Amino acid sequence: MSSPSHARVNRFKRVFFGRPKRTDQQHNERLGVVVGLSVFSADALSSVAYAGEEVLLILAVAGAAASVYSLGVGLAIIALIFIVAASYNQTIHAYPNGGGSYIVSKENLGIKAGLTAGAALLVDYVLTVAVSTASGIRAITSALPALQGHEVALCLLAIAFIGWMNLRGVKESGTLFAVPVYGFIVAMFVMIGVGAYRALTGHWDPVAPIAAGFGFGNASFQEMTSGVTMFMLLRAFASGCTALSGIEAVSNGVQAFKKPEAETAIKTMNLSRTILYTMFTGVTLLAYGFRLMPHEGETLLSQIAHVTFGNSIFYYIVQASTSLILLLAANTAYADFPRLAGMIARDGYLPRRLANLGDTLVFHYGVMLLAAAAGVLIVIFKGDIHALIPLYAVGVFLAFTMSQTGMIIHWLKIAKQPGESLKRHWWSVFINTLGALLSAVALIVIGITKFVHGAWIVCIVVPALVAYFMHIHSYYDRFNGRVGNLLSEPMTIDNATKVKVVLTIGGLSPVIDHSMRVARRLSTDITALYVAVEPELGEKLQRKWDLARHGGVPLVVIPSPYREVVEPLRRWLDNLHRENPDTLINLLVPVVVTNEPFDNYLHNGAADQILRDLRYTEGIIVTEIPFYVNMNPTESVLAYDPNQSMNADD
Amino acid sequence: MSSPSHARVNRFKRVFFGRPKRTDQQHNERLGVVVGLSVFSADALSSVAYAGEEVLLILAVAGAAASVYSLGVGLAIIALIFIVAASYNQTIHAYPNGGGSYIVSKENLGIKAGLTAGAALLVDYVLTVAVSTASGIRAITSALPALQGHEVALCLLAIAFIGWMNLRGVKESGTLFAVPVYGFIVAMFVMIGVGAYRALTGHWDPVAPIAAGFGFGNASFQEMTSGVTMFMLLRAFASGCTALSGIEAVSNGVQAFKKPEAETAIKTMNLSRTILYTMFTGVTLLAYGFRLMPHEGETLLSQIAHVTFGNSIFYYIVQASTSLILLLAANTAYADFPRLAGMIARDGYLPRRLANLGDTLVFHYGVMLLAAAAGVLIVIFKGDIHALIPLYAVGVFLAFTMSQTGMIIHWLKIAKQPGESLKRHWWSVFINTLGALLSAVALIVIGITKFVHGAWIVCIVVPALVAYFMHIHSYYDRFNGRVGNLLSEPMTIDNATKVKVVLTIGGLSPVIDHSMRVARRLSTDITALYVAVEPELGEKLQRKWDLARHGGVPLVVIPSPYREVVEPLRRWLDNLHRENPDTLINLLVPVVVTNEPFDNYLHNGAADQILRDLRYTEGIIVTEIPFYVNMNPTESVLAYDPNQSMNADD
Repeated sequence: MSSPSHARVNRFKRVFFGRPKRTDQQHNERLGVVVGLSVFSADALSSVAYAGEEVLLILAVAGAAASVYSLGVGLAIIALIFIVAASYNQTIHAYPNGGGSYIVSKENLGIKAGLTAGAALLVDYVLTVAVSTASGIRAITSALPALQGHEVALCLLAIAFIGWMNLRGVKESGTLFAVPVYGFIVAMFVMIGVGAYRALTGHWDPVAPIAAGFGFGNASFQEMTSGVTMFMLLRAFASGCTALSGIEAVSNGVQAFKKPEAETAIKTMNLSRTILYTMFTGVTLLAYGFRLMPHEGETLLSQIAHVTFGNSIFYYIVQASTSLILLLAANTAYADFPRLAGMIARDGYLPRRLANLGDTLVFHYGVMLLAAAAGVLIVIFKGDIHALIPLYAVGVFLAFTMSQTGMIIHWLKIAKQPGESLKRHWWSVFINTLGALLSAVALIVIGITKFVHGAWIVCIVVPALVAYFMHIHSYYDRFNGRVGNLLSEPMTIDNATKVKVVLTIGGLSPVIDHSMRVARRLSTDITALYVAVEPELGEKLQRKWDLARHGGVPLVVIPSPYREVVEPLRRWLDNLHRENPDTLINLLVPVVVTNEPFDNYLHNGAADQILRDLRYTEGIIVTEIPFYVNMNPTESVLAYDPNQSMNADD
Repeated sequence: MSSPSHARVNRFKRVFFGRPKRTDQQHNERLGVVVGLSVFSADALSSVAYAGEEVLLILAVAGAAASVYSLGVGLAIIALIFIVAASYNQTIHAYPNGGGSYIVSKENLGIKAGLTAGAALLVDYVLTVAVSTASGIRAITSALPALQGHEVALCLLAIAFIGWMNLRGVKESGTLFAVPVYGFIVAMFVMIGVGAYRALTGHWDPVAPIAAGFGFGNASFQEMTSGVTMFMLLRAFASGCTALSGIEAVSNGVQAFKKPEAETAIKTMNLSRTILYTMFTGVTLLAYGFRLMPHEGETLLSQIAHVTFGNSIFYYIVQASTSLILLLAANTAYADFPRLAGMIARDGYLPRRLANLGDTLVFHYGVMLLAAAAGVLIVIFKGDIHALIPLYAVGVFLAFTMSQTGMIIHWLKIAKQPGESLKRHWWSVFINTLGALLSAVALIVIGITKFVHGAWIVCIVVPALVAYFMHIHSYYDRFNGRVGNLLSEPMTIDNATKVKVVLTIGGLSPVIDHSMRVARRLSTDITALYVAVEPELGEKLQRKWDLARHGGVPLVVIPSPYREVVEPLRRWLDNLHRENPDTLINLLVPVVVTNEPFDNYLHNGAADQILRDLRYTEGIIVTEIPFYVNMNPTESVLAYDPNQSMNADD
């Protein structure tokens, strides 16, 4: 049934975007712990690639020796990981259908809290794409210094590539994801093991550039670290908090796990958490043990790998697996963003069309929006992840705090139910309170210490998004209020069939014959209308108009001294409507459609103008009459002339 | 007649874009020499602001003393200006209706030559915007060094502002243009006069940074300038040739002048040419007299003004008038670009819709395209006019050469006509031959000396554009060939009125009642169709469907297990078409339209999908049924329910 033009466009879409994906095919394989980890943990685990470096970067200002404080800051972050992960385990228990921060906040703290968490998460998905890509590219340029200076271009390329993969539809296959995730885990553990051995035995090769002044020399420890202030420690902690980004992913997708879902999910969460803080600890200790400090051209992880493996193949394996898991982390944001936007849309706080997963165009727009926003951030911040991190951390911990606070309310509500008691749930309340408190503290620390470094941007964008959500909801409310009571009115059926068909024509062309045939099927009261931008053409058409040939349909030529197409037409229709107020005017607009869709813009200039400007006009409805032309010289000219194909079928 | 939604959008358009402009209002004032100069000469005269500097910039490589050669190069350029302007005077004689390079080349050398000239000119309009804006901004940053380092941002701002002014519709008023053009001329002449006095009397104040090494000292002239090669002189000449850009403008607009048009135009051209080379000579001599060399932070013109006027108010007047005329030059490209594109479109080498001056949307797209292209060039070349000039000059002289060669053929043709002789036109032939030869030489010099500096880009873009023009023309040819012979076939009128109306509905809403009323006017054979993305909603609708209330119209619920809207609908329609091959299916798609147009995207998600994917499908035509809702609580809900307004009028 689809026209050849349609088929051609479709073929192009298939090649460019891949086959359409059915929504219910997404989770037909249930995940165990091992595969589940690879599907849900890329974002969380990959943060090891930058979190430790961010801590050291702040402390480095106070001199190399201040890096000893990184051990303390690291310990605080590990404690935070432990508590927050435990806290999310409670969420998994309570929301086995999937408890994202939006749902948990909304159900327990009210819609505004939910929308705040939702806005923070949407912003975070953009930042996940930007930060993970930038970090992944840095892993590559650290290993291949020849590429340095081209980071922005490489980031944009990577974002475009990941976006395109998503437009084509990446199969969210656990086995596919397992390679980079487990590759990274193995690479990190081997590096930490070998590195620890070298650091402890003193067998390390100072091949990497070591920061000067690391040895304490004659200066006392006090002197060397006197530049470290409390504020600096808090800033370092705030920077390191990005290690927690993505930790909540498992709790969003409980339904994807094997039965019993909650138990499998919790096992996965615990495994992920353990791996995360082991790796984070290892990296922090090795950086300290090797006396490494962050510098521009090379990531901290790359420096550690260099010291551990020299320039051997193992070094390159570490870098490759790091950049792979980071790009995979960016990729997961593409799946999360439309899912969350859809949930918010179903609640009426985003355009309802976003709620429909079946609309590929909406999905495509979403992917392109996400890629474009991340690309803009990369360009503005010149691909510098240190500049992006402050923006990132605010959103992450805003969502954590909302969600964990929501969980406290959840347990308190449950405890009040008959047959339940606070005693039975005290542990959950305790853990979630601890999680909420620590998240809130981290949020405040991040907000204050990073405010001038970019956190203020998020402080503007999130409320702006929430205001936008509220605007949309109030619009829908007003609309439903206006229209809702119409339903109770009795339906009046009048059997008037007075319809005047007005057929716009663009000259004496075969299109006329075809549209006239269609017009004659729709009504017996037809007028053909021509707007004469050039007066001579109008006179010529009037002379040549053959009443008999055109079935007695009269031609009206409207002069257009100002060379306008639409305005004279509008005035004429206005007149007709005023003279025939109880008649519906059906404006037929012939449109040429060929089976070379990429050239179709070469036709229909006037038709597009009329459709654009007259579509919603009082008293008229608009019907497009497609005139299908097959440009293939070996086939019949009129590809889909309804009249012809009907005769053929007779 | 326009809907409130339409009116609201229109009001927004008015404020943002200004009142619509009628094409025939453009030239209702005929211009004399004085006003004509201000309308057509901004581009030509403003080139004085950069051409002299470009010459010196090349020579500077060979040492400061090499600047003596700038006098010789300047002389060659002045001779070129003289000949080319005289050459264009012949064009004005021959083409009193306006002889742009496209028309002259096309008529005399054939369509490919015309298209080549047209492509070169279209590229040049983009470059005019980029070069003039960048140069205008440099005039500003020279005077206000605090703005240095922000050139790219300022250029983009200026381009956006000029683009926006054009979207609003700048009145091409001669009096408005007179201020910057004559302001610049007066400022330059005063500066040249005062400067010459100071240079000759030695009363000049070396306040500006003077290039070191200008004094010949003990070295001989030979030694000092030994670095100057012939190639360098040619490069300097090629750079200076940009002084000629825009010189042909008068010949394009002969019809805008007072009668006798050709004579007034020629007088204007001669005045413009005289002013141009006087200013160019003055600037070249003063730069030499003051021993000035180009440098990064300040334009040559600003240096001259500094030396002449110190830091007095006169200096700032020179800079302000320079930047104003340059921005005005950029502005003229916005008028020229759509005019030329329209001419090419009327000949069938660009989409025909571009030929229609009445389509404001096409004009808006043209303005935005021009601004975007110039903006991209500014970003790529970092606002550096030295980098843009090589691109610019190629197109200018390509168009000159084509046009002047065309003029030779023109006169030879005329001479062959009865009653004419070569003797009568020998002077025209001679001048145009000289113009064509010199333009060709300049083109070759520019092409060779600037090839690696960017001219190669134009050498790719112009042929690509010509190929695109040819593709469009051949498409139109093929299309007309396919469709043309259909016209001779007899028109068959069948009086079948079998139309099945299929009304898509999105749930039990007031929209149904309204669209049902419209449907009943269009046909008696109606089916209501609902695609049940959620099975429960489908069952609910089926239960609630009230045959009596809906005038006996049956409801069909199509299940959609894959949550798709379009595909189940397409299959159902396909079936219907196969079972009723001789019936036309009219698919009614209700669309909500409110008088808050900026929120209309919150409605019609499914309708947009259906319209997008089913619009051109064999056997069906699509009719949109607008459901107008007035969101203003004090007014009637159904803003433009055709039924209601009809009853009201009864």
